[in-house]
Amino acid sequence: MVTIVKIGGNVIDNAGFLNEFLSAFANIQDQKILVHGGGKIASDIGLELGIEPHYVNGRRVTDKRTLDLVTMVYGGLINKNIVASLQAKGCSALGLTGADGGIIKAVKRPVQEVDYGFVGDIQPDSVDLELLKRLLDSGLSTIFAPLTYSSDGILLNTNADTIANILATSMAKLRPVQLIYCFEKDGVLDANSEVIPKITQADLEHLQTEGIVKDGMIPKLTNACEAVKAGVKRVVIGNAQNLESIIEGKSGTEIV
Amino acid sequence: MVTIVKIGGNVIDNAGFLNEFLSAFANIQDQKILVHGGGKIASDIGLELGIEPHYVNGRRVTDKRTLDLVTMVYGGLINKNIVASLQAKGCSALGLTGADGGIIKAVKRPVQEVDYGFVGDIQPDSVDLELLKRLLDSGLSTIFAPLTYSSDGILLNTNADTIANILATSMAKLRPVQLIYCFEKDGVLDANSEVIPKITQADLEHLQTEGIVKDGMIPKLTNACEAVKAGVKRVVIGNAQNLESIIEGKSGTEIV
Repeated sequence: MVTIVKIGGNVIDNAGFLNEFLSAFANIQDQKILVHGGGKIASDIGLELGIEPHYVNGRRVTDKRTLDLVTMVYGGLINKNIVASLQAKGCSALGLTGADGGIIKAVKRPVQEVDYGFVGDIQPDSVDLELLKRLLDSGLSTIFAPLTYSSDGILLNTNADTIANILATSMAKLRPVQLIYCFEKDGVLDANSEVIPKITQADLEHLQTEGIVKDGMIPKLTNACEAVKAGVKRVVIGNAQNLESIIEGKSGTEIV
Repeated sequence: MVTIVKIGGNVIDNAGFLNEFLSAFANIQDQKILVHGGGKIASDIGLELGIEPHYVNGRRVTDKRTLDLVTMVYGGLINKNIVASLQAKGCSALGLTGADGGIIKAVKRPVQEVDYGFVGDIQPDSVDLELLKRLLDSGLSTIFAPLTYSSDGILLNTNADTIANILATSMAKLRPVQLIYCFEKDGVLDANSEVIPKITQADLEHLQTEGIVKDGMIPKLTNACEAVKAGVKRVVIGNAQNLESIIEGKSGTEIV
């Protein structure tokens, strides 16, 4: 079983959480992939450099300076520190962007009503599955920064959930895959703030109508449902601090 | 023949030069490795972030903030842009620091009279030659940022010439290797500013006594001589803009 874990800013921005999480990740048996997002650190460094974040419809616009910022912070600072830390924990990790080995190609998002700038949209067949398989088979755990590239050699800022999703659905063509989306809560919570252990697609529509699933959870769960439909064996949403128990099936919300 | 090329700031800081250089690098037949240094861009971003460069005996002291800076700029911004650009030129490139796959381990330089901070010293047997060979054999050109790591998971700022040297001397145990150090001149210049096509170790001592070889050229040529002694088949010092003719033996200074 190939395990793919996605973590976001809430883990990355807290050195203690991150260290504990990486210990648990290093302990995962069999092949594994980590996809990390950005976090507050990119915004903080951006502000120091005078780069004001600019959002349209809740999505960050990536101008050239912001692209350089995320290339530095996501592709360099965060990615390489995770890699070095995993090495020390006995997990041989290889840090990647989509450009490395051409492993995830994308297209710059077409300008329609909004110009999102240097943002990558991934096509379903854009993963070099042969290379990914070869790296995993040689005992390397691949650590993905949320960056891809276009065929004309431009790096592109790319949503980390989307990268985790495309890696999982691509890899699922070859091997059983479990996909774990980590976020700040212990799972999808019901009206009494209890974790719902399992959700079906039908439940999801129901929970949306009731307003229990809303805002940022909607795209997350939609992504998760798509992964299940595309053949990913197990998809769980949970808290990065519970990685071990999520893998054991004792924590998080499984999408079935 | 495995070709290892080292470039420094004079190429990296000029987008036009860099693009031409990368086109020539992409055209190198057979297996190839690029090692890049930093450049003015790191100092510029450092100044914007309020990180003042601090040198002792001509060497930069790497405090924690400087380490973060070089991790971002060398390991992220410069490395990933080179990788993406090479992909567009049809060269499948993989960006690495020493931490990735544990490919170059180092030790933090011991504090003696000076504390250089997070600086890595590389031992002769610190390259994971098996991994490097596997990556090259699978058709990937490896692009090294000047960063290594220690066994306790700390990234370390490491001299790019030294990285090129250790990769060349390690790889020479397995395959014929040529090592090309690029810098701002066309080669080692004689008293009439003409390029000296070939230099022996004996010549070098002579040129040093005469003051023709001085300052920064001394460690460069000492490194080059060591590489020849360690079995690197061909070592040349020349201008990055002449990469093609250096490889053809029509430019640069060969150390024999």
